[in-house]
Amino acid sequence: MAPRRLQVAVAGLGRMGARHALNILNKTPRAEIVAAFSPDKNELQWGKQHLEPYGITLYDDYKKMLEHKGLEAVVISTATSVHAEESLQAIEKDLHVLCEKPLSTNVQICQNVVDAAAKKPHLKVMCGFSRRFDDSYQDVARKIEQGAIGRPTVVRSQTCDKQHPDPDFFVQYAAWSGGVFVDMSVHDIDLTLWYFGSSIVPKSISANGVVAILPGLKQHKDYDNAVGIVEFWDGRIAHYYASRMMTHGQEDVTEIIGTNGKLTVNLNPQKNLVNHYSKAGITREVPADYWGRFEPGFVKEANEFTAACLDNTPVPLEFQNAVKAVQIGAWLQEALVSGKQIRFDESGKRIDRANL
Amino acid sequence: MAPRRLQVAVAGLGRMGARHALNILNKTPRAEIVAAFSPDKNELQWGKQHLEPYGITLYDDYKKMLEHKGLEAVVISTATSVHAEESLQAIEKDLHVLCEKPLSTNVQICQNVVDAAAKKPHLKVMCGFSRRFDDSYQDVARKIEQGAIGRPTVVRSQTCDKQHPDPDFFVQYAAWSGGVFVDMSVHDIDLTLWYFGSSIVPKSISANGVVAILPGLKQHKDYDNAVGIVEFWDGRIAHYYASRMMTHGQEDVTEIIGTNGKLTVNLNPQKNLVNHYSKAGITREVPADYWGRFEPGFVKEANEFTAACLDNTPVPLEFQNAVKAVQIGAWLQEALVSGKQIRFDESGKRIDRANL
Amino acid sequence: MAPRRLQVAVAGLGRMGARHALNILNKTPRAEIVAAFSPDKNELQWGKQHLEPYGITLYDDYKKMLEHKGLEAVVISTATSVHAEESLQAIEKDLHVLCEKPLSTNVQICQNVVDAAAKKPHLKVMCGFSRRFDDSYQDVARKIEQGAIGRPTVVRSQTCDKQHPDPDFFVQYAAWSGGVFVDMSVHDIDLTLWYFGSSIVPKSISANGVVAILPGLKQHKDYDNAVGIVEFWDGRIAHYYASRMMTHGQEDVTEIIGTNGKLTVNLNPQKNLVNHYSKAGITREVPADYWGRFEPGFVKEANEFTAACLDNTPVPLEFQNAVKAVQIGAWLQEALVSGKQIRFDESGKRIDRANL
Amino acid sequence: MAPRRLQVAVAGLGRMGARHALNILNKTPRAEIVAAFSPDKNELQWGKQHLEPYGITLYDDYKKMLEHKGLEAVVISTATSVHAEESLQAIEKDLHVLCEKPLSTNVQICQNVVDAAAKKPHLKVMCGFSRRFDDSYQDVARKIEQGAIGRPTVVRSQTCDKQHPDPDFFVQYAAWSGGVFVDMSVHDIDLTLWYFGSSIVPKSISANGVVAILPGLKQHKDYDNAVGIVEFWDGRIAHYYASRMMTHGQEDVTEIIGTNGKLTVNLNPQKNLVNHYSKAGITREVPADYWGRFEPGFVKEANEFTAACLDNTPVPLEFQNAVKAVQIGAWLQEALVSGKQIRFDESGKRIDRANL
Repeated sequence: MAPRRLQVAVAGLGRMGARHALNILNKTPRAEIVAAFSPDKNELQWGKQHLEPYGITLYDDYKKMLEHKGLEAVVISTATSVHAEESLQAIEKDLHVLCEKPLSTNVQICQNVVDAAAKKPHLKVMCGFSRRFDDSYQDVARKIEQGAIGRPTVVRSQTCDKQHPDPDFFVQYAAWSGGVFVDMSVHDIDLTLWYFGSSIVPKSISANGVVAILPGLKQHKDYDNAVGIVEFWDGRIAHYYASRMMTHGQEDVTEIIGTNGKLTVNLNPQKNLVNHYSKAGITREVPADYWGRFEPGFVKEANEFTAACLDNTPVPLEFQNAVKAVQIGAWLQEALVSGKQIRFDESGKRIDRANL
Repeated sequence: MAPRRLQVAVAGLGRMGARHALNILNKTPRAEIVAAFSPDKNELQWGKQHLEPYGITLYDDYKKMLEHKGLEAVVISTATSVHAEESLQAIEKDLHVLCEKPLSTNVQICQNVVDAAAKKPHLKVMCGFSRRFDDSYQDVARKIEQGAIGRPTVVRSQTCDKQHPDPDFFVQYAAWSGGVFVDMSVHDIDLTLWYFGSSIVPKSISANGVVAILPGLKQHKDYDNAVGIVEFWDGRIAHYYASRMMTHGQEDVTEIIGTNGKLTVNLNPQKNLVNHYSKAGITREVPADYWGRFEPGFVKEANEFTAACLDNTPVPLEFQNAVKAVQIGAWLQEALVSGKQIRFDESGKRIDRANL
Repeated sequence: MAPRRLQVAVAGLGRMGARHALNILNKTPRAEIVAAFSPDKNELQWGKQHLEPYGITLYDDYKKMLEHKGLEAVVISTATSVHAEESLQAIEKDLHVLCEKPLSTNVQICQNVVDAAAKKPHLKVMCGFSRRFDDSYQDVARKIEQGAIGRPTVVRSQTCDKQHPDPDFFVQYAAWSGGVFVDMSVHDIDLTLWYFGSSIVPKSISANGVVAILPGLKQHKDYDNAVGIVEFWDGRIAHYYASRMMTHGQEDVTEIIGTNGKLTVNLNPQKNLVNHYSKAGITREVPADYWGRFEPGFVKEANEFTAACLDNTPVPLEFQNAVKAVQIGAWLQEALVSGKQIRFDESGKRIDRANL
Repeated sequence: MAPRRLQVAVAGLGRMGARHALNILNKTPRAEIVAAFSPDKNELQWGKQHLEPYGITLYDDYKKMLEHKGLEAVVISTATSVHAEESLQAIEKDLHVLCEKPLSTNVQICQNVVDAAAKKPHLKVMCGFSRRFDDSYQDVARKIEQGAIGRPTVVRSQTCDKQHPDPDFFVQYAAWSGGVFVDMSVHDIDLTLWYFGSSIVPKSISANGVVAILPGLKQHKDYDNAVGIVEFWDGRIAHYYASRMMTHGQEDVTEIIGTNGKLTVNLNPQKNLVNHYSKAGITREVPADYWGRFEPGFVKEANEFTAACLDNTPVPLEFQNAVKAVQIGAWLQEALVSGKQIRFDESGKRIDRANL
């Protein structure tokens, strides 16, 4: 008899949801996708074509999908605005949850989900930070653990997107994304929590940004380029750069500088192993988007989440981190928009407001 | 109803066979592995653990496996010495065949299989050259097609293995591998046929080798380092380097130099995107073996072979090439062992023997 | 008759002064070093051995050296604390001046020198920022000029020194260096003025630092790692990283991100063109210090300064920039030490003090 | 009193001669250029402008120049055809000689010069192989000496020139250059002698070439792309690639593969440290010619030759090597043109002719 497979449903069949659904269908041997939900007709149409033939039941009602017989776990990749509510409902139904980041752009709402999950420790609840499942970032974690660079002291990390051919794309996106630091840098912040330890306490947060190519962002108080610094109380610093202005492709780079060495990830982005020598010189192409860079990480994420559910082992990243990363992202975004530094005492209590 | 999946059996469950079996089980959505064969008890034991639970029937008799009900295709990854015979038997049974390279180290035997396949054009018969399914090599083919480098004129290609911790490993391997040019450079030769065109006719072949670290190779007339040149009648040249002496890892590099540009593949090998900065300088690791470099290619190979069978489309590489690549490899090996150049007339007829 | 050579004296024969003296002696064809000064006996001893044999007169009194017959120009590379006074005295004597950076760690004193020079427009007075004479940085300037990246919008630039074997070295240095931003990042700031234009007006300045490996720095209110952001009123941002903690060598990196492309300098530092492949992987070495990276720039600097003096052409960098770079460096240092953001109005007038 | 400077004359003021003259004038502190010779009016005109003003005497008669009072050394960079004769005359006059490579394209004539020099051991006579003075190649020699790669076993080395805008340029050059292996690969051969040891004895030599873009080469029995293998009796192999077809620039690459590691030089050519990120991807430029790659080597060569003459120390490369490198180049060229392998016995005596 074939080993039992985790019975999974996918909520949301947009760009990312469809990718999750196909990953579980085709590249997650220990999981079986049995149901999928979307509130959107076009997405359901896609599901009819690509999922229904495999016996996957489609729903246009999330709650009904949660009632699907035998269902054990839900992968949530609907709009960010409903991530938290749908997670809460799944937890309520005693289902494991893998939710796309962020749980919410609102920190308190994130915390509510974490609190709900904490009450059901038998459930595996995880927020999907794909870089945690990337070979290179995992190698860095291993090397740091082995002492390869001494004490990690400074993180420089950037998430830089290719300019979108449609100038409205990122502007519309900014209406609900929570801003560049919450939407993009949250990955860099999560890496910082990974490499510095999740107990680090911010001491001060500063940020600046410009609107260089997408004037429409101003209406949403967002920026197409932003830099920020987070200083921590234990003598460490992280600085971030987020941009939607790259012409060459996606360029997510991380450096971890320790007291006795340094590790870099993706300092020299490349689409594949080809170089083209021509009159222009020597040229290599770069992945156009995060999928071109992180696709294998998403597959690994689905597999590791499945294993944690089936084997009742811990999920690979603390759920609480998902709140902390959004919280720091939100503070950076606040510092960015207000132009004012935010400060904290050693317990992590914010103290700048009192000063002003 | 779920789309029909190709019913596949895998012959051989050694290192490579096990990988093929798992690829088809887990990473080839349109195929279903239904049976597996091995003459080896340990391999069958592995099958009992990893395949039988999924309803896959195990056989210790290849012919019986071919009788498996509903079987449509066989993936052959047994010892090279039986590749050809097993391929012929599968073709005889009207089964599609994906056979690991080489079909045989004997050119005539290779040709026999190709001839048998040619008589059954409804069958998909393919010899697995994994680089044909590698993103980077495919990108090179596309760029050449688009004229990015003018006329491809010189190929430099190398297959270099990491030194094996067990000095006997490669020596024992050499007993039946056909020699470095047949075993290793056959990949580089296949790439040459791809990029220069499969109709190219050799004009002369020269080769030299040394035994630098594995004296045991001498008893099998093999070498741990070998270089060879193949000159073609249409004004092109390929030169190859094969080595089993690398300390840093696997290093398979290809350059294609055209009249108006150059393309390189994997000139800077890397295990992942991490660099370590230390007192020694800046260091990156390198894949330890071909699996670390080409794993995604093997997955793509299984999927594309499956698609060709199900959709009745041409297999992605001409079967005849498999003979031609082995033939050129065997000539290089002969030139290597004899120390004498081999020559051909414009029709491809060998002329050096007559001269001597 | 051989063309006239500029009659030059060098003040200061310490590490950098000796290099300047030898550059002028051996690698600056249109200049002739005729005199040198040092207040230090050891340095004079070095001069006796390396300069006197070539007919160069040594002085232990700076003012007397200025009286050297026929003297036309002075290269000043004494201690930073006397740069300004010695520059003023040379200007007073109607001599061209090439002064090592910084003119002073005090902005007003810098300005005094610039003012004095402005009154004698026939004199060439230049503050030596060696990167201005580096092939790569000059190539970037040319490419920006040609529109290769659209409007330069974000500069990321770092000056990172190798850990000194003597832990006291940088601590003693910090006593008078003005702090990491004035001493190290001043180069990155000067590059920013070059690529953004020297008329840019800061809007806000923030900085943070840690003392990770050199606790002695605390007594001088300095840091071994510091990051800072300068936001400019015309919608541009620069962010800097200065460190004395590298284990691998000197790593000065600059990125200029434009609205339509990006340029990087030295993202992959290397000592030479050698890579070593070993069990550790693939390793390249890195220059140990700024001399290993910028030596050819210093030679070009001496030659271009000489040409400007002899041909009465403008010096290659505006002297006023030297003040502005130190000013921004000093503000960054102030923000670093105080932990408070500094703000400016559109005219460049500082406004944060009034607010607090 | 200033230390004595070597009194040097330069013969030939063409492209390379002019560079030598300026190097000695401006960048070789211990040498003084006192005379220069050219048989060419244009070259002499250049000398009038750039050398005469510095008191350098110009000659249109080589022999008269040799009589220049106080002359100690000659740098010969006239046409290859007169290198040997002019070297002999200078040796005859008891002058040190630095002669551009090759001494001659004729091996016997090379040997004559070496023999003449051997009779005057007080003279420093050197053939200029610029790579011997390149930092990276010197670093490789040092690392090999230190055992960094075990026993050097395989050399792969290429000299690849950029396509010349004038298609006739290389064709005319081929009339007297001795062919690609003598003209270009002689550098790679010299490196082989350096890293393998100058006592290595060839066992067999094979070569092939194509005329891909410069049909005019055929009249001179030359090729625009050529590959060759030299097998040595002590179990080592060198293989070479020479090309005049690069579009991207000069690309001289060397790999030395040892039994315990590998060293590469210039595997990733670059003009400077700039990378340009654009829609095309990430691009770096490449030096256009050997001067862009090796200029600092030529300066070091002039300085080290000068030091050897003044200090009576050995010149940095054995003069006999210059013959051996040309000899191997000539054999490769013969194998290339004839299409036949050349063979030698263990004493180095050629045995293939006897066999045929």
